[in-house]
Amino acid sequence: MKRSLSVLAASIVLSTNAFAASTPKNIIYMIGDGMGPTYTTAYRYYMDNKQTKDVEPTVFDSILVGMAHTYPDDDTIVTDSAAGATALSTGKKSYNGAIAVNSDKKPLKTMLELAKHKGMTTALVATSQINHATPASFAAHNESRRNYDEIANDYIDNKIAGKLPVDLMLGGGTKYFVREDRNLVAEFKASGYTYSDDISNLDKIKSLPALGLFAPVAMPFAIDQHPDRLEKMTDKALSLLDNKNKQGFFVMIEGSQIDWCGHANDIACAMHEMHDFANAIKVAKRYVDHNPDTLLVVTADHSTGGLTLGADGQYRWERDVIKGVSASAEVMTKQMLANDDIEAIWTTATKLPFDNQTKLLLDQAKSQGEKELAQAIKSIISKASFTGWTTSGHTAIDVQVFAYGKGANQFTGSQNNTHIADKLISFIKK
Amino acid sequence: MKRSLSVLAASIVLSTNAFAASTPKNIIYMIGDGMGPTYTTAYRYYMDNKQTKDVEPTVFDSILVGMAHTYPDDDTIVTDSAAGATALSTGKKSYNGAIAVNSDKKPLKTMLELAKHKGMTTALVATSQINHATPASFAAHNESRRNYDEIANDYIDNKIAGKLPVDLMLGGGTKYFVREDRNLVAEFKASGYTYSDDISNLDKIKSLPALGLFAPVAMPFAIDQHPDRLEKMTDKALSLLDNKNKQGFFVMIEGSQIDWCGHANDIACAMHEMHDFANAIKVAKRYVDHNPDTLLVVTADHSTGGLTLGADGQYRWERDVIKGVSASAEVMTKQMLANDDIEAIWTTATKLPFDNQTKLLLDQAKSQGEKELAQAIKSIISKASFTGWTTSGHTAIDVQVFAYGKGANQFTGSQNNTHIADKLISFIKK
Repeated sequence: MKRSLSVLAASIVLSTNAFAASTPKNIIYMIGDGMGPTYTTAYRYYMDNKQTKDVEPTVFDSILVGMAHTYPDDDTIVTDSAAGATALSTGKKSYNGAIAVNSDKKPLKTMLELAKHKGMTTALVATSQINHATPASFAAHNESRRNYDEIANDYIDNKIAGKLPVDLMLGGGTKYFVREDRNLVAEFKASGYTYSDDISNLDKIKSLPALGLFAPVAMPFAIDQHPDRLEKMTDKALSLLDNKNKQGFFVMIEGSQIDWCGHANDIACAMHEMHDFANAIKVAKRYVDHNPDTLLVVTADHSTGGLTLGADGQYRWERDVIKGVSASAEVMTKQMLANDDIEAIWTTATKLPFDNQTKLLLDQAKSQGEKELAQAIKSIISKASFTGWTTSGHTAIDVQVFAYGKGANQFTGSQNNTHIADKLISFIKK
Repeated sequence: MKRSLSVLAASIVLSTNAFAASTPKNIIYMIGDGMGPTYTTAYRYYMDNKQTKDVEPTVFDSILVGMAHTYPDDDTIVTDSAAGATALSTGKKSYNGAIAVNSDKKPLKTMLELAKHKGMTTALVATSQINHATPASFAAHNESRRNYDEIANDYIDNKIAGKLPVDLMLGGGTKYFVREDRNLVAEFKASGYTYSDDISNLDKIKSLPALGLFAPVAMPFAIDQHPDRLEKMTDKALSLLDNKNKQGFFVMIEGSQIDWCGHANDIACAMHEMHDFANAIKVAKRYVDHNPDTLLVVTADHSTGGLTLGADGQYRWERDVIKGVSASAEVMTKQMLANDDIEAIWTTATKLPFDNQTKLLLDQAKSQGEKELAQAIKSIISKASFTGWTTSGHTAIDVQVFAYGKGANQFTGSQNNTHIADKLISFIKK
């Protein structure tokens, strides 16, 4: 009983400070674009160590707390990434295509803007162009996600309390930042931003504010080049943000291309994107371990492709087939169109047999064109691994919510995706 | 501070009794066979009141606590219902087809047997035959789920502490209980069981032990007949179990045919099964509200069909199409084979237009046979509603875990399906 009372004495202090104690200083918000629950399930089996009897849990398994409903503000039920990101950045549902505007196309205040207004340091990290729908919905306002130039302009024109909205941006997109009509890179430099265009030299960014644009549009797929680019950008961002501002920081980090591999119905491509995203989460989780006043929230905007593990009546999912694939279908297709030795490309990139059936399918598809060839490559891999797909678009399945650190208990159970934003905004507003 | 201290004084009592306080007396374990996360998501949108702006949460949303990994004890990753139920009833993974036996085909102790051994009252409720894989894995042991007669025999032969294992069984299955070689119904009656074979007269079962077998094999689909049969059986079971035994009770209630509609890729059929299961959960939840020493756990053994909301590149899921369907494809098929007025059957049962394309597809399919006609019916409904399917079998996506009542906090986060059983078994063993 003595011990219980001393524990309780500690509880008194904790409970009187309960609210302050549960409000995080720093927020790391990670969005796996298109990462429905099949993707995290697939990733666990893909990563499984077959030498052990049990299937090892992943970093996702260590921080699952709930699920979220992703429907947009119309009657379609299936959201796009813009409406999804707008819900996740503002707490308000909008129409498909909306970048932080409501159904009347009026701007909605984003949590990044609120964070900046409060004096927090802000950052956006993505493997897509940094002005793509998800990051855009945190720092720009536009009636259409397709207005890439206008969105990039917003990053320097849309001042918050007289300051630029985002202190650190890492991703792709030079095409949209260096244009004939306007050179935003030069403008950012003139505003005091360090600039880099080389992901291999992240070390050269030593202070904030900073802008890193590492590709003309999106960065290449993780399966094709720089498999750990999101992990490295996450590590860099957190080291730049760490302890620079007593108001704390807000960073949104997107695993952008899980979605793109899903749209392509390319399972090996998706698993490599998941691996980079999972490793980026591990970096963020370690940061929280060392900085317990930080909250990490991870979720998805929707699922993509209608991915299923098991297909065509078979009770199997052949992860070894997928582990053997070392290039995206997009890259394999380009190689096969440029080179007549399809067999060498196929066996190197997939480790699958080049049997008569495969040869026939690929030869025929190659003669039909790029799209057909890419489709044939993916179709053979999906069939061999018993991976199912139902669409080139999105699906409406609830997504998972993961949280870790201070305030993580606010995201448990089943919730609307707007609840995640509302809660984060309430933390920022404290 | 004064108030805090009095609250803390109460906490002392609570904390010293913490373990006892968190061990439930009664356990209601509900399994939605095949109910992967797409099914609960679909059900929310299917049930949505379109007159309101928000999509109303369902009973599932009110009690979601985590997710579970369903892989069996082999290298396939995709489980069947027998291995799934064995994991959920014994805490041990086994091979596909196993009914509460391990990979060496040795019996595994089930939580229902442990409950009976402890002196708890036990019950099984299902809409399938009561000797189907899921209920079977709680009260029988067999190397194959297909040995239906042997499994039914176990329900009377496999004595636990000298007693019959299950005090109450409600479901289908007279075909397996009244056979040429053995009349188990007569044997149960001789052992003191009340027997009923009429779901419309559930009231006639007034005491335990009791056996209700309401169909030769499975009960009809909810969409075709008795839409609330699981809800009613659940209500009956709980009223029979209520306060009869100071040791408490264990009941497993299965929404068996969510899976079967999934195998058939029949979305309207699946939504009606979900509705009956959801209403059964509401009954169980109300029981917990009135009996807070009870734990309700709801989960699934796996997902079925590779169901997706959205398909073919379209960002839409048309619930109104599905709401218009009032018969299973199985029943529509039988009607169309028996009657030449396909148009009348189609428009009555689906509320979809009988246009030239539909007429052509159905006429052609009818001439090919029953299977082809059923397939055509389902395919038109799936296409019109943008519902996707990838398989006639199961998939490996993690399933959700729902819990409510005493001890519910033991099932939060991501877990192996065996963890659910292990935890329930630890409660039973206390």
